[in-house]
Amino acid sequence: MKMSARNMINGKVEGVKVGQVMASVKIKIESPNVITAIITKESIDELDIKEGDAVKAIIKSTEVMVGKE
Amino acid sequence: MKMSARNMINGKVEGVKVGQVMASVKIKIESPNVITAIITKESIDELDIKEGDAVKAIIKSTEVMVGKE
Amino acid sequence: MKMSARNMINGKVEGVKVGQVMASVKIKIESPNVITAIITKESIDELDIKEGDAVKAIIKSTEVMVGKE
Amino acid sequence: MKMSARNMINGKVEGVKVGQVMASVKIKIESPNVITAIITKESIDELDIKEGDAVKAIIKSTEVMVGKE
Amino acid sequence: MKMSARNMINGKVEGVKVGQVMASVKIKIESPNVITAIITKESIDELDIKEGDAVKAIIKSTEVMVGKE
Amino acid sequence: MKMSARNMINGKVEGVKVGQVMASVKIKIESPNVITAIITKESIDELDIKEGDAVKAIIKSTEVMVGKE
Repeated sequence: MKMSARNMINGKVEGVKVGQVMASVKIKIESPNVITAIITKESIDELDIKEGDAVKAIIKSTEVMVGKE
Repeated sequence: MKMSARNMINGKVEGVKVGQVMASVKIKIESPNVITAIITKESIDELDIKEGDAVKAIIKSTEVMVGKE
Repeated sequence: MKMSARNMINGKVEGVKVGQVMASVKIKIESPNVITAIITKESIDELDIKEGDAVKAIIKSTEVMVGKE
Repeated sequence: MKMSARNMINGKVEGVKVGQVMASVKIKIESPNVITAIITKESIDELDIKEGDAVKAIIKSTEVMVGKE
Repeated sequence: MKMSARNMINGKVEGVKVGQVMASVKIKIESPNVITAIITKESIDELDIKEGDAVKAIIKSTEVMVGKE
Repeated sequence: MKMSARNMINGKVEGVKVGQVMASVKIKIESPNVITAIITKESIDELDIKEGDAVKAIIKSTEVMVGKE
């Protein structure tokens, strides 16, 4: 399946922290960048996401802001 | 100012495409990654965003999805 | 690829309206429901989205609100 | 009140899972579709959302992505 | 209808700028605050939004970030 | 740093409720308005957000909906 989401960044899961409903996934993209994804605990279980997994961080472009010094 | 947004990625503006209300900004983060940000034309003007600018792509972690093969 | 996005709804493209940067896609899911997706013109071109296409409407669950009378 | 959100889908609450801050609501829209909404526990309490309730899943169109095989 | 969206702020439309697909609505909430909403042109037409209208700015709480000096 | 996010509202933290992964921050902007922000527990800790803090509620304009009676 091809998706309209413009941003797909390959990375590796560095850590997973699971709450009752939500979970935080740390994805190392390229040193020194780490992307945090907050997704459901249900997704963690269904995709079996664990440290070391090769994953994609996917972000709809309307969600990206721009900062400039 | 420090922000709750967990994801701030340094990059360089590779291209700007401006519509009547919205605008698309291509941000090169590290080869071969380019992030697309859809922001208002007003922001483009106010921050004077143009090709070659050093910027940050800022993403709230609740907006990041995870994909896994 | 499996995705953390919890909501994937099969449907058919009923209409596409393209602006300079953004585009609106009407997706008929099941009578009488039509879902509107606002995505980039770039995605329309790259996925070659046109009326009658079988597509999926994909929505991260943190983006869904609940209303009750 | 009329809202700018383009997507309002009638459904029935199929299940509610409540964490400390967030909650997950499963909304059955039409067989076999179920939409997951992640909303605050506070909303669950204030709207008194429980299994069997007739509700609307409300989604801003800028949050909908499109996937195509 | 009651909504799970936690943030509803009364205000007055100060200006509307319409593109081909998207539109920008400036909502004056209380001096000196103005909130910008980017919504579809279709919503502008259907809700007949124009300068001076009393409206609500509605924001899902998962979309709000926090900044601190 | 200047940001493309169009909405920055000054306020004071009225209350913080922390879960395992996510946290809710109540920000009093101007009587009688209170904005709810759902952010990560990690941000709460890193920015040391506590009751009485002067903060900014930051909202990307594509996330704001409009309601009209």
